[in-house]
Amino acid sequence: MAGTNSENEVVAFLGPITSYTHQAALSRFPESQYKIVPQTTIADVFDAVQSGSVTQGVVPFENSSNGSVIFTLDLFADLQDRNPDIVVCGEIYLPIHHCLLGHVSKQDNAQSETTQSASKAKPLHDIKHITKLYSHHQAWGQCNNFLTTYFKGIERIDVSSTSKASELVSQDTTGTSAAISSRMAGDLYGLALLGENIEDMEGNSTRFFIIRRRDNKSTDNTPVSDAVAETDEEHARYKTLISFTVSHGEPGALAGCLAIFQKFRLNLTSINSRPSDEATWHYIFFVETMGRKRLDGQGAVNQALHQLEGVAQSSRWLGSWENALKA
Amino acid sequence: MAGTNSENEVVAFLGPITSYTHQAALSRFPESQYKIVPQTTIADVFDAVQSGSVTQGVVPFENSSNGSVIFTLDLFADLQDRNPDIVVCGEIYLPIHHCLLGHVSKQDNAQSETTQSASKAKPLHDIKHITKLYSHHQAWGQCNNFLTTYFKGIERIDVSSTSKASELVSQDTTGTSAAISSRMAGDLYGLALLGENIEDMEGNSTRFFIIRRRDNKSTDNTPVSDAVAETDEEHARYKTLISFTVSHGEPGALAGCLAIFQKFRLNLTSINSRPSDEATWHYIFFVETMGRKRLDGQGAVNQALHQLEGVAQSSRWLGSWENALKA
Repeated sequence: MAGTNSENEVVAFLGPITSYTHQAALSRFPESQYKIVPQTTIADVFDAVQSGSVTQGVVPFENSSNGSVIFTLDLFADLQDRNPDIVVCGEIYLPIHHCLLGHVSKQDNAQSETTQSASKAKPLHDIKHITKLYSHHQAWGQCNNFLTTYFKGIERIDVSSTSKASELVSQDTTGTSAAISSRMAGDLYGLALLGENIEDMEGNSTRFFIIRRRDNKSTDNTPVSDAVAETDEEHARYKTLISFTVSHGEPGALAGCLAIFQKFRLNLTSINSRPSDEATWHYIFFVETMGRKRLDGQGAVNQALHQLEGVAQSSRWLGSWENALKA
Repeated sequence: MAGTNSENEVVAFLGPITSYTHQAALSRFPESQYKIVPQTTIADVFDAVQSGSVTQGVVPFENSSNGSVIFTLDLFADLQDRNPDIVVCGEIYLPIHHCLLGHVSKQDNAQSETTQSASKAKPLHDIKHITKLYSHHQAWGQCNNFLTTYFKGIERIDVSSTSKASELVSQDTTGTSAAISSRMAGDLYGLALLGENIEDMEGNSTRFFIIRRRDNKSTDNTPVSDAVAETDEEHARYKTLISFTVSHGEPGALAGCLAIFQKFRLNLTSINSRPSDEATWHYIFFVETMGRKRLDGQGAVNQALHQLEGVAQSSRWLGSWENALKA
């Protein structure tokens, strides 16, 4: 692919360097072909794509253990109309393996003794010298068994990312702190691997969205011919994200909107709600369905979107993309 | 009401003392009639009710600005079957007014100068001496305009509750820290009121659930005669919470479940999803509908629950209670 016009394409991701989003971005946008640039916040990634200073962006959307990333949902809700042109054009699933990273104790006995425990992972070194743990708040919940077994009562400090946790531990001259972070971050900051795969759940995984401007056709990942018939198999190849709000006073308004998807046999795969700024206890709903919005305007998703406009208070197509879980 | 058998009833709430949940609990369970006891975590409140050591519990469910409290949702999801008997039996809406609490500077000029700002709230005293802010992570998001206007670049420290923030500031002998917390907490810890109603949104409000064991009939808040016809008005007097999971491989399974509520003209007022432990990317869904499960088994909610059993992989009635927003 080297030598294509993607050579100079700039892609933004939620940083810092070695973040899980960085790893997801690298898996789709190799540095040999793309210039990938870290952003401080998810909002910064949206801003960079909206303004056109980058062509695509990579943001976390949901984790299999922790659920939706509400910051990302709120940016798609776009209540202040800052990101009117942003759509999803792809997804990346990244297995998340957390490591315990830090400094090896001078009295190290290499392998730690075996303990009766709920945690399948074991420390690879002595951990008695560790008095303080750094990580991102989502990581604690994903490593609960390991932490309960080996670090009960040990101080935990929330920092802005797991990469930041590694950086802070690398600066700790006492050697008594450790980070829950990625192996890539540990390598960058020269930390010792004190434990690996310490997450509770096999299959712990995060889904990232690739976003673009809707007028950027070169990044459209659903370019198949509209001549293809809308079989179930064809539907399963794509996913679509849609947001809508309903009139609060109208009984059955939410059910009425959801019924439209059923009418067109669109399989809803996820549903989320977030507060809408408009008034207290009003919500904006997000549904994800199989299928895609077709260019010829004739598909089931197109028809559902059209009918939704008549029933919902407001609605927005937030992109269609290839289903990454489909072989 | 003094002298009723509620005199010795013990009610648990999410502490610490002066938390917003404490204030919600006091509004429904006055100390003249109930013994109300703080718990460290939301899980502790569920445990206390499940074990029968208290008869009822009060937990936060959602905030109008920040959305659902995922810890509470996950306890209702009850994937480890620890709380099989917990149901919701009531709700409390509490307006949330955040204050800036701290120490008055020795060089204080009483009223701070007026600044051009996006924040309607203004500091009541000099704030130049403040170098550090403590609060609960949900509060930052609710006071964004005030913080951006007056505390740009000032260090923020996340603590476990807004009450804890006040306690820490009261122990700060330098006087240079302040808390975003409740007036009640400020009073308890003897802090000066440096700003009030600093939340962004008018109508910022949190909804709390009162939980009980399903076999505790004395706490049943839907005891009206089943002879009452199920008019729309009757429906609007109650709310019901239901959770369900769907077979992942089956197209339309989620829409099929939601269609049942539409069939029985049940107005869904909220919908949430959380990861289900069962397998990666499986969800448990929560819907809230108007209406109640009737004792005679004949109501629309009863019928919907019955049909849901046939369509969903699993489903659970999580309680019916009086709608606190209905006059």
